[in-house]
Amino acid sequence: MGLVVQKYGGSSVADAEGIKRVAKRIVDAKKNGNQVVVVVSAMGDTTDELIDLAEQVSPMPAGREFDMLLTAGERISMALLAMAIKNLGHEAQSFTGSQAGVITDSVHNKARIIDVTPGRIRTSIDEGNIAIVAGFQGVSQEGKNITTLGRGGSDTTAVALAAALDAEVCEIYTDVDGVFTADPRVVKKARKIDWISFEDMLELAASGSKVLLHRCVEYARRYNIPIHVRSSFSGLRGTWVSNEPLGDQQVEHAIISGVAHDVSEAKITVVGVPDKPGEAAAIFRTIANAEVNIDMVVQNVSAASTGLTDISFTLPKSEGRKAIDALERSRSAIGFDSLRYDDQIAKISLVGAGMKTNPGVTAGFFEALSDAGVNIELISTSEIRISVVTRADDVIEAVRAVHSAFGLDSDSDEAVVYGGTGR
Amino acid sequence: MGLVVQKYGGSSVADAEGIKRVAKRIVDAKKNGNQVVVVVSAMGDTTDELIDLAEQVSPMPAGREFDMLLTAGERISMALLAMAIKNLGHEAQSFTGSQAGVITDSVHNKARIIDVTPGRIRTSIDEGNIAIVAGFQGVSQEGKNITTLGRGGSDTTAVALAAALDAEVCEIYTDVDGVFTADPRVVKKARKIDWISFEDMLELAASGSKVLLHRCVEYARRYNIPIHVRSSFSGLRGTWVSNEPLGDQQVEHAIISGVAHDVSEAKITVVGVPDKPGEAAAIFRTIANAEVNIDMVVQNVSAASTGLTDISFTLPKSEGRKAIDALERSRSAIGFDSLRYDDQIAKISLVGAGMKTNPGVTAGFFEALSDAGVNIELISTSEIRISVVTRADDVIEAVRAVHSAFGLDSDSDEAVVYGGTGR
Repeated sequence: MGLVVQKYGGSSVADAEGIKRVAKRIVDAKKNGNQVVVVVSAMGDTTDELIDLAEQVSPMPAGREFDMLLTAGERISMALLAMAIKNLGHEAQSFTGSQAGVITDSVHNKARIIDVTPGRIRTSIDEGNIAIVAGFQGVSQEGKNITTLGRGGSDTTAVALAAALDAEVCEIYTDVDGVFTADPRVVKKARKIDWISFEDMLELAASGSKVLLHRCVEYARRYNIPIHVRSSFSGLRGTWVSNEPLGDQQVEHAIISGVAHDVSEAKITVVGVPDKPGEAAAIFRTIANAEVNIDMVVQNVSAASTGLTDISFTLPKSEGRKAIDALERSRSAIGFDSLRYDDQIAKISLVGAGMKTNPGVTAGFFEALSDAGVNIELISTSEIRISVVTRADDVIEAVRAVHSAFGLDSDSDEAVVYGGTGR
Repeated sequence: MGLVVQKYGGSSVADAEGIKRVAKRIVDAKKNGNQVVVVVSAMGDTTDELIDLAEQVSPMPAGREFDMLLTAGERISMALLAMAIKNLGHEAQSFTGSQAGVITDSVHNKARIIDVTPGRIRTSIDEGNIAIVAGFQGVSQEGKNITTLGRGGSDTTAVALAAALDAEVCEIYTDVDGVFTADPRVVKKARKIDWISFEDMLELAASGSKVLLHRCVEYARRYNIPIHVRSSFSGLRGTWVSNEPLGDQQVEHAIISGVAHDVSEAKITVVGVPDKPGEAAAIFRTIANAEVNIDMVVQNVSAASTGLTDISFTLPKSEGRKAIDALERSRSAIGFDSLRYDDQIAKISLVGAGMKTNPGVTAGFFEALSDAGVNIELISTSEIRISVVTRADDVIEAVRAVHSAFGLDSDSDEAVVYGGTGR
C-alpha cells in the first residue's frame, strides 16, 4: 500500500460543489489501496476577502495577527472537505498546520518550514483515516505562534509533508492540465510537458512560470519527492517533476523544456557610476540592506571617454519604491549621476538542460526574436536558461516566436528531441 | 491595577466599523489602568454562514469537523480586533481557545470546560499586551481536538477565564443595556435591573431570559466572579450579577426580580397511565435514555373510577420528535393509552428571592393572569420562582399583566421593594 499526498488549490474547492467533487477524487485514491494525506488551500476568494477585511480595520495589519486571520481560510475548507469525505462513507480527520507538525521560523507572512513532525498524521492514516491538512500554515518553533508560508505556501506544505511521511508521490491538483512549454493563454499551441527535471522546473519557476513556485520545487528536489502536477477537473495524466523519468513516463524529450515569461518585474538603471572597484558592491549592498530581492544584473561596458558606466538590474515591481528610496539616500556615498525606473518591461526565458551542449540554441533564440522585430534590452544566461528583457508590449509576440522557432508548437514536426533515459 | 475580562458578542463586532468601535472601548479600559483580557465571538452572521456551507456539503456534518469549521469564525474576529487595537497604538495579541488554555471534555458541539490553564494569557498581559481570546472554543483534554462549547459559549469562556485569572469583574457586552424585569420587546415599561443575585439570574436564565445563559451564570456563581452585563453601544452602567451588591450599587431591590417567558418549548401529555408505583419512573427513564432534556413535570390527580392518570411534561420543541418516538417504542412496556403533543404553549415565570417569604406572591400571580383572561394549563414552583404554562397566543398579554401587577413597570409607584443590603 502506497502513501500519496494530494494538494488541492483554492480554485478546486471554490464552492460546495467543488468540495464534493474533490472529495470523490480523494476517496477514489483511497479505494485504490493508498494511504491518503490531503493538503488543501482556502476556498476560492476567501483569502482575498480576509485581506480586504484586514485593510478595512488597519492600514498596516500586524504580521502575527494577519497570519492568525488568514489561517481561518484553510480551517474552513479543510473541515468542509473532511465532512464531504465522511458523507461518502469514508473516515477523514482535518488537522491545522500546527496539529500536523508543520514547524516554521518566526517570520510572519512568509515563514519557512524548518521541520515537520507528522506524528498525528501518521497515527490518523494508520487508523484508516484520510488526513486533511491545512496548507499554507504552520506554528513557529519559538513562541508557538501561528505562521503562514506566503504565496504558494500550500504546495510547499504538501511537498514537506510528503517528504516527512516518505510518500511515493506528491500530487499537486490545479486548474490546468500540467506544466506547459509556454503559457497556454499566450501560446495556443503550447504543449503539456510529460516529464521535466527538477532543475528545468526550477528555472521555469524562477522565470515566471506560475504552475509551481520555486520554493516548492527546491524542497522536492532536496528530498527527492516526485511531484505530479495535474488537473482536478479531469482524470488526465499531468506533468511529472522528478530527478529521472519513471518507467512508463515519456523519456523522449526536447532539448528545450519550455518558454517562460514574466511581466511582474521592473528595471532600475543606475546611470553614471564611476568605473572602479567597489562601486557595484556598494550599490548592491544598499539594495540588500533594504531587503529587496533582485533578479537579473547587467553592467554595460564603460565609456572610455568618461570613465563612467551604467548598471541595470531587475526586481519585482512591488519593491521598486523601496529600492529607489534606498539608492537615493546613498547617492552621494556611492557617487552616481541618476536613476532610471522602467516598469514597462517583460522577461522572456528559454529553459532546457539540452541547451548547454547545443551552442546553436543561444543564436537561434536571438534570431527568433530579431525575426519577430523584438528588441533586446538585457541578456542573462545560466547553463540551462537564457533570459532577455524586452518591452512589455512585445511579450506575446516574443514568446510565440521563440516557442515556434524551437519546434515546441503542438502540431510541429520539427521538435528538437533526443532519445535517452533522461539526463 | 485591576484585571478585567470583557466579552463582546457577534452583533458588537458585526463589521469593520463595529470592530473599530469595540477596539476603542477596550483601549479605554486599558488606559484606565487595567490589565485587559477580551473574549470575542464570531462576527455577525459568520457562524450561520459556516453552518450553511456545512449543510451544502453534508446533511449530517461530523462533530469534530463541524467544530473545526465553526472555530474559524472567532479566529477571524479576534485577529481583526487585535489589528484594530494595534492600529490605535496599543499592543495586542490574539489567542485561540487552545492557546488560551481552555481545556474541555470531548463532547463536540457542546463541550464543557473542565480546566483553564491561562499561562500564555498571563504572560501576554504581564508583558503589557491586551490579550484577545476566541470565545466559544477549546481543546479536548483527550485527543487534543478542537471543540466548541455550544450556544452562548463565549460568555462561559469569559467567565471561566475571569475565574482562572482571578479577575475583578467579567464584563459581558451585548446589544441591550442589561438584564430587564421583562423582555423589553414585549413589555415597553420593562426596567433595567441594577443588581441581581446569581440565584435569581439563574432562575431567569432557566425561564427563558436570553441575556445570559444558565451555564455561564452557574460558572460565575461557583467561582464568585461578578458579571457586569452592559451595552457595547453606550457607556451606561448595565446590570451587575453577583453574590451581594457592591458598595455603590443599588441595594434597594424588589421582592420580584423579573418576569421571563419562553415560547421555545412544547408539552407532551402521556394519557392513561396506570396509577401505580414505577410508572412515572419508566416514562422518564425512557425519555432520559433518548437524551432528551425535560423542564416542567406535572402529574394530574388520578381519576378514582379508572385508576388511570395523565402525566405532562415540557421540553424543547426541537427534541419533541425524539421524545415521541422513544415513548411510542415503549408504549406496551410502560402501558399507557396515548400521547398528546402540543407546541402552541408558552411558559411565563416570575422570579425573585423575596417571594419565598411573601405568601401573597403566588396568589397575586394567578390573580393577574386570571384578570387578563389567561388560562393556566400547568404550574411549577421553586423557592424563588413560579412558572405557568399557557396558550402561546396569550403570552404577551400574560407577561404584561404580571409585570404590571407586581409594580415592575418603570413609571409605577407601586414597586414592591424592601430596604437592606441584599440577601
